Order: sequence, then structure tokens, then C-alpha cells
Amino acid sequence: MALLAGEVDTDVREELLARYRRIRGETEQLVDPLSAEDMQLQSMPDASPTKWHLAHTSWFFETFLLRPHLAGYRQFDPDFHQLFNSYYNSLGTPFSRPHRGLLSRPHLDTVFAYRRSVDRHMAALLSADEWRPELEYLVILGLNHEQQHQELLLTDIKHAFSINPTMPAYSAADDDGESGDEEAANEVRWLDIAGGIYSIGSEGEHFYFDNEGPAHRQLLQDFRIASRLVTNSEYREFIRDGGYREPRLWLSDGWSWLQKTRASHPLYWREREGHWYQFTLAGLQPLRGAEPACHLSFYEADAFATWAGKRLPTEFEWEVAACLLRQPDQLAVANLLEKRLFGPVAAAPGQPQFLGDLWEWTASAYHPYPGFRASEDAVGEYNGKFMCNQKVLRGGSCITPADHIRMSYRNFFYPHQAWQFTGIRLAGDAV
Amino acid sequence: MALLAGEVDTDVREELLARYRRIRGETEQLVDPLSAEDMQLQSMPDASPTKWHLAHTSWFFETFLLRPHLAGYRQFDPDFHQLFNSYYNSLGTPFSRPHRGLLSRPHLDTVFAYRRSVDRHMAALLSADEWRPELEYLVILGLNHEQQHQELLLTDIKHAFSINPTMPAYSAADDDGESGDEEAANEVRWLDIAGGIYSIGSEGEHFYFDNEGPAHRQLLQDFRIASRLVTNSEYREFIRDGGYREPRLWLSDGWSWLQKTRASHPLYWREREGHWYQFTLAGLQPLRGAEPACHLSFYEADAFATWAGKRLPTEFEWEVAACLLRQPDQLAVANLLEKRLFGPVAAAPGQPQFLGDLWEWTASAYHPYPGFRASEDAVGEYNGKFMCNQKVLRGGSCITPADHIRMSYRNFFYPHQAWQFTGIRLAGDAV
Amino acid sequence: MALLAGEVDTDVREELLARYRRIRGETEQLVDPLSAEDMQLQSMPDASPTKWHLAHTSWFFETFLLRPHLAGYRQFDPDFHQLFNSYYNSLGTPFSRPHRGLLSRPHLDTVFAYRRSVDRHMAALLSADEWRPELEYLVILGLNHEQQHQELLLTDIKHAFSINPTMPAYSAADDDGESGDEEAANEVRWLDIAGGIYSIGSEGEHFYFDNEGPAHRQLLQDFRIASRLVTNSEYREFIRDGGYREPRLWLSDGWSWLQKTRASHPLYWREREGHWYQFTLAGLQPLRGAEPACHLSFYEADAFATWAGKRLPTEFEWEVAACLLRQPDQLAVANLLEKRLFGPVAAAPGQPQFLGDLWEWTASAYHPYPGFRASEDAVGEYNGKFMCNQKVLRGGSCITPADHIRMSYRNFFYPHQAWQFTGIRLAGDAV
Amino acid sequence: MALLAGEVDTDVREELLARYRRIRGETEQLVDPLSAEDMQLQSMPDASPTKWHLAHTSWFFETFLLRPHLAGYRQFDPDFHQLFNSYYNSLGTPFSRPHRGLLSRPHLDTVFAYRRSVDRHMAALLSADEWRPELEYLVILGLNHEQQHQELLLTDIKHAFSINPTMPAYSAADDDGESGDEEAANEVRWLDIAGGIYSIGSEGEHFYFDNEGPAHRQLLQDFRIASRLVTNSEYREFIRDGGYREPRLWLSDGWSWLQKTRASHPLYWREREGHWYQFTLAGLQPLRGAEPACHLSFYEADAFATWAGKRLPTEFEWEVAACLLRQPDQLAVANLLEKRLFGPVAAAPGQPQFLGDLWEWTASAYHPYPGFRASEDAVGEYNGKFMCNQKVLRGGSCITPADHIRMSYRNFFYPHQAWQFTGIRLAGDAV
Repeated sequence: MALLAGEVDTDVREELLARYRRIRGETEQLVDPLSAEDMQLQSMPDASPTKWHLAHTSWFFETFLLRPHLAGYRQFDPDFHQLFNSYYNSLGTPFSRPHRGLLSRPHLDTVFAYRRSVDRHMAALLSADEWRPELEYLVILGLNHEQQHQELLLTDIKHAFSINPTMPAYSAADDDGESGDEEAANEVRWLDIAGGIYSIGSEGEHFYFDNEGPAHRQLLQDFRIASRLVTNSEYREFIRDGGYREPRLWLSDGWSWLQKTRASHPLYWREREGHWYQFTLAGLQPLRGAEPACHLSFYEADAFATWAGKRLPTEFEWEVAACLLRQPDQLAVANLLEKRLFGPVAAAPGQPQFLGDLWEWTASAYHPYPGFRASEDAVGEYNGKFMCNQKVLRGGSCITPADHIRMSYRNFFYPHQAWQFTGIRLAGDAV
Repeated sequence: MALLAGEVDTDVREELLARYRRIRGETEQLVDPLSAEDMQLQSMPDASPTKWHLAHTSWFFETFLLRPHLAGYRQFDPDFHQLFNSYYNSLGTPFSRPHRGLLSRPHLDTVFAYRRSVDRHMAALLSADEWRPELEYLVILGLNHEQQHQELLLTDIKHAFSINPTMPAYSAADDDGESGDEEAANEVRWLDIAGGIYSIGSEGEHFYFDNEGPAHRQLLQDFRIASRLVTNSEYREFIRDGGYREPRLWLSDGWSWLQKTRASHPLYWREREGHWYQFTLAGLQPLRGAEPACHLSFYEADAFATWAGKRLPTEFEWEVAACLLRQPDQLAVANLLEKRLFGPVAAAPGQPQFLGDLWEWTASAYHPYPGFRASEDAVGEYNGKFMCNQKVLRGGSCITPADHIRMSYRNFFYPHQAWQFTGIRLAGDAV
Repeated sequence: MALLAGEVDTDVREELLARYRRIRGETEQLVDPLSAEDMQLQSMPDASPTKWHLAHTSWFFETFLLRPHLAGYRQFDPDFHQLFNSYYNSLGTPFSRPHRGLLSRPHLDTVFAYRRSVDRHMAALLSADEWRPELEYLVILGLNHEQQHQELLLTDIKHAFSINPTMPAYSAADDDGESGDEEAANEVRWLDIAGGIYSIGSEGEHFYFDNEGPAHRQLLQDFRIASRLVTNSEYREFIRDGGYREPRLWLSDGWSWLQKTRASHPLYWREREGHWYQFTLAGLQPLRGAEPACHLSFYEADAFATWAGKRLPTEFEWEVAACLLRQPDQLAVANLLEKRLFGPVAAAPGQPQFLGDLWEWTASAYHPYPGFRASEDAVGEYNGKFMCNQKVLRGGSCITPADHIRMSYRNFFYPHQAWQFTGIRLAGDAV
Repeated sequence: MALLAGEVDTDVREELLARYRRIRGETEQLVDPLSAEDMQLQSMPDASPTKWHLAHTSWFFETFLLRPHLAGYRQFDPDFHQLFNSYYNSLGTPFSRPHRGLLSRPHLDTVFAYRRSVDRHMAALLSADEWRPELEYLVILGLNHEQQHQELLLTDIKHAFSINPTMPAYSAADDDGESGDEEAANEVRWLDIAGGIYSIGSEGEHFYFDNEGPAHRQLLQDFRIASRLVTNSEYREFIRDGGYREPRLWLSDGWSWLQKTRASHPLYWREREGHWYQFTLAGLQPLRGAEPACHLSFYEADAFATWAGKRLPTEFEWEVAACLLRQPDQLAVANLLEKRLFGPVAAAPGQPQFLGDLWEWTASAYHPYPGFRASEDAVGEYNGKFMCNQKVLRGGSCITPADHIRMSYRNFFYPHQAWQFTGIRLAGDAV
């Protein structure tokens, strides 16, 4: 006997609500170790306060779902429309980004009340008569948006804590008895991929961001790619060899960045009496040689690759390699948010390291795929307008939720930015 | 019967402890309307978070009294030595000033615990055997220092709140039924003072800051001085007359400041549909014409005076006039912190307006008095090193404690700064 | 009868010397209208003084040919090695770029003496026994480098003159009797190109820059491309329609650039009493509607395309279209340096406008082609290290020498830069 | 027999014309060693190109004398009114100061033609019927203005040359056979001056700038003052003792300036293989220990004085001491412009060193004297509007003309500026 359409729809809506509750709850779990004072911090214009993330993700649901689609909905607080708009200029002038840390009001408990109110109304919308199946996409977009902010709120609080000389810890240290420098990293293996025409990007039924499509064909040449990420040991060798002082290794803009910032090591590395440490979400920890080198700018990634006689992969090479080489249970084994390690780990011997651990800088500029069109409404500002001056990163990180990442997922940051969990995978032309 | 020396001393110490408790308690009363999130805010490098003020004032007692003078004292937290040092370079490199707002840790309750611990130990020191009468000066210095920060924490939170589009209120509005523009300001009177040699500055038994001495003689010419501060009505006239657009009225640096900031009105004035409002500690309020114009930079004060065909008084003229013209009960009638008005009020008819309401910009650069010597120890960094590029302000404001202000008190700020409660009194040469 | 190898070689060397003299002479002809004072100007860090261009191009021959390859050669002046090094960090620290305008010494006549000395020694090298055929590439590279600086010296002096309120003219105005606004631009036609695998880039015997290779295959989708550049009339329409005030039309970085620069029209447009003029190498001239709009940043080009419902072509689409659509005598008819018009002209009716007039912004980031390797010596710094954050421009301009431009030629600038002769060609997906 | 008024007047006018010609000729002599290219340089916004000085000084005569007072006078070039206005906002918006170096046009020969034309018309005005005795003040003001620019053009070209790695020389070195470090500086003597009421400032018949008046009385305390300027040896000792690294020696703003500039020695000192040199108008020269230390900022002067346990004199102390201690022929023996040494020299044994050599930083802020009123017309912008944020310097320098300097002369610069010939004289309170 065939199910009635209404029943099917009800199942979909129930599942959607369950997923909504799980992901929204996950966000609140993640902020649990933080105080109201912690959640107020904004350490640079690129970062936002935790409290702002909590409110903005709710604003997204209120703005794109509740206000236009739930009959009789009244705004929780009309001021929030401006305060928690991130960058949707078509919805009015957002509150100044570098000043988000100055919004002590609304207080944190009001923001939590806002979340609860939005959640209540979202549940109402999901069972309302006016529900239309087309809204499903917007709900799922909102949940993916929420997951992006789960990641951002952790990297943002990490940056803020790194400024405090007392180096606060967000989480407990991973005391697995290994002392860093003794571990040997497993050897890198070089995987050869044949050139040809490959299909790139997402299409079909499952959710993906607009920037992952249209799916299209790319012509690749033969190339090789490393089985794992560059390690702290390898990166330390680059430093020892004078990598930060040799202009020939650097892109011209990278060299200028180096002169301006006077950087001589990765963002969170600290030298204490001849030993390297790094600031982590568990506070200051001894540097472990076998772990992937992290919090690197694109400039550092590119200079390292040049020093190593290699190059970074293009995003197309990355996607093809990752799809070809992944394990059947890659998402399950990968070091993603669910593992709650909050930092990258050494690659497992004999296994390719794809997905999780660190976002991998690619050689590719963040450009629209052929045929890309941003949607005409406000949601259209989501991705398209950032397609200039940024680099694509692939693969997710140790703080990306497993049901958020995909092989076709395109993250993007400016070449100088290093406060995300970013790392390096090397590639090369076929030999 | 004569008291024994010991008894006298005990009285002094008890009085000192009572005063200590009163002033420290006053600070905590003042922060009562603020949440932990509010107290985290730092809206510009010139300002500090409330929490930082609470900790720094305690650090002062710990650093200059408890650690050197209380036997067996152990630091509350060794990290605090760096975190809450303001600018005493001789005590080590202070934590970066523009980043004070990023210290979510220590949490507010830890800072209050720090205060209580310091208070307990201060009480112990004041009754300890090792007490020496010479310490009295340091205690009183610490209390005056605390009072300076009482004022700063209010101006700093006012600035931080002014960035928030919801314009939070620190205190309740003063609803006295008057509607601003209708009030007539009482007429300004011109008070003539004869030139001659006057004694300037403080000396003797009562407390004064080192910058108020040595007392010395100054030769003044005949001058005249206004009986009250410039009002909002008068300042609005200056704006209407194009004052912000006429370069001839401005100092060269003032005109540059104007080009850079694009200022066209005082810092906290806001125009809404043709009416002027101003942001106050009670939120946004209609501008009242009879009240003194406040939150003006020196550049604005000087341009206004030029426009009015007058000039600002020198700090010597101000001190001489204020001493000659004050009422017997000036401190009692003046609008100082104890009145809890948190804003300036119109001058009372027929009475000179001296002390309280607003700090008054003088024409004088902040220079050492003849014979001034900074003390050789760390406390010597208190005042002397700021004697360059700043202007002297006199008279205290509506948020200055009554037992903190004196006719010889010299406050100082840079000419562009306007986030303090600053205003204008006009002067002129004898006619 | 077969020619002896030596004779062939002699012919090659004679031809090379003739070409050397022609191109070096061309540079000096171009600076003829300029005084020593003009040639001293540097109006921004991106630009260089004419005198510096004259010296640097000579430095290139001295450094890469005379010093390593001419026996017994002594440097003209050892200081010049640092002063006129542009960005070859592997040759030592170049003199600070933003300060080139402060090198009054060497005087212009010394720089001309330097040129004559280099020319004399280059002639000697070209007839010397130690000549080796491998040097031919370096000579031709040096001549192409000289031609790049011919273009730069004109755009740099144009920018410098534009700062002078008297708007000096470099050349005589083109008085062809037309008054700008009356001319009708010929209609744009849309040319459809079928997708497929195309060969891109240069290889083979003729000269090309390293960034034009390796030649390789690109897979393109069907697309369409405009027959001519966007005109002043069309761009004025964009302005009239509020294009500079509508955030939805702009890339996020473009909108930030707009807020910072407060731009409301192209770099050299000036409004006078309701009419548009533009600053040209012939001074201030009325804007002519049918002429291509020029001196646009990538941000403006992209926003215009979005407003027009189109997009910019990729560099691959451009190259394919230009090769397919060119006239047999395209180089001869194109508006290149030899025409001495010093500005773009309206497209000829019925003819596609490719090559010359204006450099055309493409949608493509400046990236290495697959398999690209920078050479290991100092000349390797020529192109590769700039392959980040810049956009590819194609087609040459009204001040590019005809024997310097190619369909595969890749120029590159940052998205905000507009002081080159840059313009817009629209493209779109197949309909 | 009494002279007729007309005859007297003719004499005055002839003398004035002779003086005009002498001073204007002096300017042209001073620029004689410079090429048109040199005269184009502007190395920082504080400095101006030589050519601009040549034009601006002529503009002054044209603007304040010829245009308003010579019947039928027509401007040499109407554009010059904007181009060569320095800062007289009441005459229109001056051409952007930081861009003066970009005015290649008018060419130098045009600027010389402008000078000749202005000179011719000034001669005409001086013999014209419409001459009025009141104009004499303006002519003399214009000549003093010209002399100020004689000094500025030399310090500005010195700064510009200092950027050039070839370190061009303006004048021949003073080869007097002494090698710097061996010379013993003559011992400093301490001169005691009794306190009391002194007359300060100028008044009467001779020319003085408005800022030197009104003459008025100042009450001074007993003080002592050094007989000569601080020498290079003494300053080197300050450096060796870690003076640039000890925050306690510096004003708070001075320490910030040090952190920002990373200064570790005076502006023009250069260390080469363990020896100190300094850049002079005769190029790079070994540092001579007995010569006065020069090109110091106020911050450096103040820190040195603190290190030495002394202080800087106030401008009143300086004026009183200089008047009391001067030799009868002080102007004749002093190292002023007429000596053409272009640098300071060691104090003559046994003689107080007052006037010439170096401008001496005083402790005094640049403030109006009591009763000062700027004149209401455009000339009124000459001095008054700069009376904020600057420090008074006294005494003239090795490049100040002898008939330009006076004991009452008040020069003024910002505390961070060091490109003028500035130095240090120590003072102290009476012991």
C-alpha cells in the first residue's frame, strides 16, 4: 500500500526537526566550557564573539524562514535585525563587523532566550499548515550555516585565548603519554593519478552549497599527491633551513607579508628555552613532531612547498585524488568534530589521510565554477560575492562536523589568514 | 590629659581604614548596574574595561603596599603583576593596553575575590606592627588613584555603550519634567580679576598629587572670566553659524583633526529628524539647551572660543579665579559624583559655576611646575612622564568624588580627546 | 649553395642588433616630450619615475648580459646595481620602491650616458667572439622587458600628471572634429563559441614569456563574447543607474574598496558643471561616448558586468575567441603604440575589436599553467612569484608595441589597480 | 636744514629695495649647487621641494603686496595662486601639501621667470605713487618669510639627499685636518641666573614676528644654564649607556615614538664597522666628538637631559640667559648662514655658545604670549594657528641668516621632528 504524500512529508519534517534539534544542541554543547565573559571576546576583525555566533545563527533562521514564512511571526527584538546581520547588504547595513565585541547587550541569557524562541518557532513552522516542501532547502542551509559557525566559534575563541598571557584552555589536554618529538611520523607516500577529464563538483539530491556547483568537467594532467599532511617535524626543518629568511622561496606578496608581520614561525608556535611549544585549545603544549603542522597561511604553505621542490595541489586535483583514494569509512575514521580532539593528529600508518584534521590550502583561486549563478535573493550573497582574492581549501578539519563535510566542499580564506585549522598537502607533476 | 602617641596613631589608622573601606566600597557600588559582559568591554585603546579598572586599582595596593610592606604577603596570582600593571615600565612590560578587553580570564568573580583579598590584607597591614607612618601617603595615593578610576570607569563604559545601536543606559534618566530647549540658560556674567603675583599649586599637610606642586608664584595680567560654562544652546549656535566648516576658527591641528574625523558636532550628539539628542549615561536624551555643552575636544573648545571672540583661561587664571570666586560651600553645592546625576546641569541663577559638572579645558600645556621632580621609585611614573602634548583641565566633573577634587587639581588629556566629561569656560583679556 | 653556419649567425646577430637599436631608440623617442623634472616624478608606490625606467631597462642588459657574458666589462657605476634593481631579491636588496622618486642623482644626463654605454657594450657583445647563441633569448627578453617599461612609463607619467591641477599634456589632442557625446557607438554583437578542448598558451620558436607556457589543453564550455569593449556611454549608464551605490552589484572586496576610496566614477573621469571629462595624455578632454571606457579597476569591471547581466570572460575564453575571430591583419589595424594615439578609440563598425585599445580584465586569477616551472636563476623571479592575488588581463593597449603583443600574452594586475589602460569586454554562458 | 618727508621716504624705499634684492638674491645663490631634478624632491610631507620654496616665497609677495597694492598688476599665472599657497585656508584650498613633489610643472625656468617678474613688479611697487608706508611692514615680513624658507630649503634637501644611498653632497666638506674623535670638547660651564621679573618678547620699531609679542613680564626662579650645547661625545655616551633602551628616561609619548620608529641613534647618524658617521650637507662624514649633537627630536633632547640629571630650559630662561650672557659681537662671531659652514661647530673655548649652530629645544610649549591677537586678515594665519602641540626652539642655527635671528625669536616644531638643525642646551634649578 502506497503511503500518502502527507505522511511522507510528515516523516521528512520530523526528521528535519530532529536534525535541527541535534545541530542546534551541538552548538550549545560546544560553548558549554565558556563563560559569558569569554563569549564576549573579539580579538580581531576577522573573528567574532561566541555570543555573536550564537545570535547570528538564530538570526539566519528568523530572517530567512520565520519572518517570511511563519504566519503571524513577530520578531524577537527588532534591533537584532541589524545587530546580527553578518554581511547581507541587501537586508540593510549590518552592524560594524570590527565592533561586534562591543555588544555586551543583549546579554548572553537574552541570546539564549532568542535561541529558544527561534527553536520554538522553527518547530511550529515545521508542523505548520503553511509549510511548503521548498522550505526544506532553507532549513538545511541554515543548519549547514550553523555548523560553519560551530567551527568558527572554536577558531575565534582559540585566537582570543591566545592573546591572554595566561593561555586559557578550552578543553582538557589529550594526555596519551606520547612525548611529541619522539614519535616518528609515518613516511609520506606519493600517489600517482592519471590525467583525463573528470567530473568536479556536486549535483543531485543531497545538500551542497551553491559554490560546489554546477557539477562540470575538468581536464587534468597526470599528477602525484602526498598520502598525508606535512608534519611539524618537516615544517621545523623548513624553519631550521632558514625558510623564513630566503626570499626566493616566497611569493612576492608572501615576502611582503613576512616583512610586515616579522613572522618567523607558525601563528601559534612559541619558543621557550630552545624548545617549541604550540598554543592549542588545551592551552600551551609541547610541539609533537608527527602531528600535522597547523595554523599556516597560504604564503607559508606555498613557500614550504617550493622549499620541498613540490607544489600545492589544485582544488580539482585534490577532489579527484580524495575521491579515488578514500577509505570506505573515511568519514568514520577521520578526525572530525565528533572525535572531540580539537586538534590534528598524526596520520595512521598505511592509511591515506583525507578529510578532517586540517583544511588544506590548494593552489586554486576561489572562483565560480562554469555556469555558476548566485541566486537573486538575499541568500544569494552567501558565497558568490567572496569569489575574489581568496584561495580554496579542501577537506575539513578536526573541528568540522562529519555530516557537514564533503569531498566537493569548498572553503575559502585570504592567503594571509592562519587562524583556521589550516595545513599543507604536497603535490607534484607526474615524473 | 594628652593622648599618647600610640593612641593618636591608632586613630589615624582607624580613620584611614574607614576611608579605605568607604572608597573601595564606592567603586563596587558604581559597577553595580553593570553585568560581567558589560565590564569586559574596551571600545578604544584610550579606554579600559570596567573589570580591568577593578583589578588594576587593587594591583596598585598590592604592588606598592602589600608586597613591599606586609610581612609574609604572597601575591594573589603572580600573573596579575603583568596583567594589571597600567604603564609602570620600571616594574616590567605591562600587558598590551589596546588588548585589555581580551582578558576574559581572570573572570569577574576572581577579580572580586582579588579585591576582597587585597582589602583583607590592607586591613591587616593597617593594624600590623610593621606599619610605619610613612605608608600613610601611599595609602592615600592609592585611594586617590582608586577615585580617578571611578571616574574613568564611568566615562569608559559610556563610550562603550555609545557604540551599541541599542544605546544601553547605565542609570535612570533624570525626569524633572523640564523639556530641554525651553529652559533659558541664566546669563553669563564676566568676572574681572586683577593681575599680580599669585601663589599657585598645593603644598602642606593635605594630600595632593606631585604634579600640583611645588607651590610657586605666577605673575598674571588683568583678565576676565565667565561665571559659568558654555551651554548647549550656545554651542548649537556655533554649529548653526558654520563653525565646523570655517578653517579660520580652528587651530591648524584642529582643522586636520576635523578633516580626518569628519566631525560636525560633539562626540555624543545625534541628530534625528531635525532635533538634537545626546547620548548620556541614561541613554539617548533630548538635548537641553541650558545645560553645559559636554564631551568636547580641546580643538572644539578653542574654536568655539575664537568664534565667540574670547579665549580659554590659562590654568593659572582658572585657579586664581576659582579660589577668589568660590562659595563657602562650593564642594557641597557642586554637581559632583555624590549627587549621582551622571551628567552636567545648568548653572544655578546668580551663582558662579565652579567645580563639578565638567572638566574645563585650559589654554595651558601640561608642564611641570618650576622645581618639579618626579620621585625616583616606580610611583614616580605616576604623573611626570605625561607632561608633553597634553592640555591641563581643571575643576572636576559630575562624576568626580567630592573628596578627590581641589582647586589646585590638574587633570590632563590630549587635545583631540572628548570621551571625558569636558566642557568650556571662556576668558578674555581685561577690557 | 648552403650558407655557412657563421654567416647565418652573423645575420641573426645583425638583425638582433638592429632590433635592439630600434627598440631602445623607441624608448628615448617616447620620453622626448618630457623634461628632466617630469622624469623625476613618482606619484605612488605602484608607479616609477621615467628616469628610473630609463635606467632600470639598461640595468637589465648590464646585469643579465654584459656583466656575466662580456669579457672585461666593468660596471658603469657600482651603485646602480642596487638603485636600479626592481625586485630581484636574489641579486641583493633592491632600493626601496616607494622612494624611487627621491633619486635626483644620478641626474638624467648620467642616465642617458648609462644607456649609451650599455648600448655600446651590447653592440660589442653582439659582435664579440664570446657570443653564444643561447644569449639570443636573453637579449630578446631584455627587449620585451624594455617594451613593457615603454608602456609603464606612459601610464606612470599619466598618473603623475593627473595629480597636477594644471593637468599637463604629454601629447597633442586628437582633434578630429567629433564632439564626444554625439557619436553613436556601433552596436555590440555577441559571438558564440562552441565548447571543447582547446590548446592554450605559447610554445615553439618565437619569443614568449615563461608565464605563457607550457602550452596545454583546456576544456571549455559553450560561451558567447562581445565583439567590442564596453563604451563610455554604457559605463555612464551604469553610473546613472546608481551602480556605485548598490552593494549587490559588487564583490565583497570591491564594496570595501569603494567604501575606502569613496570612488564614484572611473579614475580619470572629472565632472565639471554637469558634464563629464576625462584626463588623458593630451590633458583634460570631453568624454566621448563611443570610446571604450578606460582606467577601470577589476572591481568596477566585475560590477559593471553584473549590472549588465553578463560576466567577464576567463582568460582561456578570451584567447580562444581572439584567435578565432581576429582579422588577418589584426595587428596592423589595431590601435597599438605605433599609431601614437595614446588613448583608446571607438570600435570600427562591423569589425571585432581585439588587440590594442585597452587591456581587458578577465575573470581568471593569475596562476601558473600546468607544468610551469620558474627558471632557477635570477631571471626566474621575472613572473612566477607574482602568481597570487592578481588577475589576468589580455589583449594589449593603445600604448603596447605591436611586436610585443600576442594572443597568448598574459598581463596581470591587482583587482584595485586602474592606472593602466584597462577596460571591459563582456562574456556570457551560451544561451 | 631739515629733510623733506618725501626724501626720507625715498631713502627708506631705496634701502628696502636693496635689502629685497640682497635677500632674494641670497635664495638663488643657495640653490645654485642644485639641479632641476634635485629641486623637484619632496622626501616627506613635512618637507617641500626647493622649487616649491622658490615659487612660494614669490607667491607671498604677489599675494600680499602686488595683487592688493600695485595698480594694474596681473597675476603671473592664475594657477599659481592655488599651487603655491602653503596653508592660508582663507585664500582658498591650498594644493595638497604631501603632493608638492609632484608638480613638475611649472618647470624650474618658469619658476625663475616668476621670481624675476615678481622682483620687477616689487621694484615698481617700491617706487610707485601708490606706495604707502604701511606696506613696509609687509615687505619686511615677506623678506623674513623668504629667509625662513632659505633655512627650510636646506634642511629639506638634506633630508631628501639622506634617502639616496649615494649620499649626495650639497657643499664641499670642511677639511680642517681635525679628525673627529680626537678633539676634546671644551668643558661645559654652568651659568647661574638669579630669579625675578624679566621682560620677555619684542616690541618697538624693529621687525619681529607677531608671536614674539606682546612684550610682557615673566616671573622666573633662580636657575642655571649650560654655556654650550651638548656634544656628539656626550650624546654618544648616552647611547652607550643604553639611553635608547631605558623607558624611565623617556616621556611617555617619547617612548611610544621610540617603539614605533625603532630609533637607536640620531636621525643622520650611521654606524659603519663600529664607527659613527653622520650624514651632512657635505655627504657622509666621520662623527666629530666636540661638535654639537644635532638633528635630535625633542623626545631625545628631553631623555638626554633626564639621563644627565638636568632639564631643558624654558623659553623664558633661555631668552633671559642669552640676553645676559651674549658677547657684544655675538651675531658676528656666531655660526650662522653667512659663514657657509652648513653644520654646527665646536664651541670656542672660554666663550658662551649662543645664537647659531643649532636651534635649541626648550621645555616650553608654543603658546601665545599674554595679550596676543592674530591679525584678522590672511596674514593672521602666519603664526597663531600653530600654537598647539609644538615646542619652542630658540637661537637660530648654522643656516639661519644673521639679520633674521633675534634673542626673542620663537621657532616651533613638533616633538618628534628632527630634520631641522636641532640640538640641546641643558639647564637646572639653582643648587
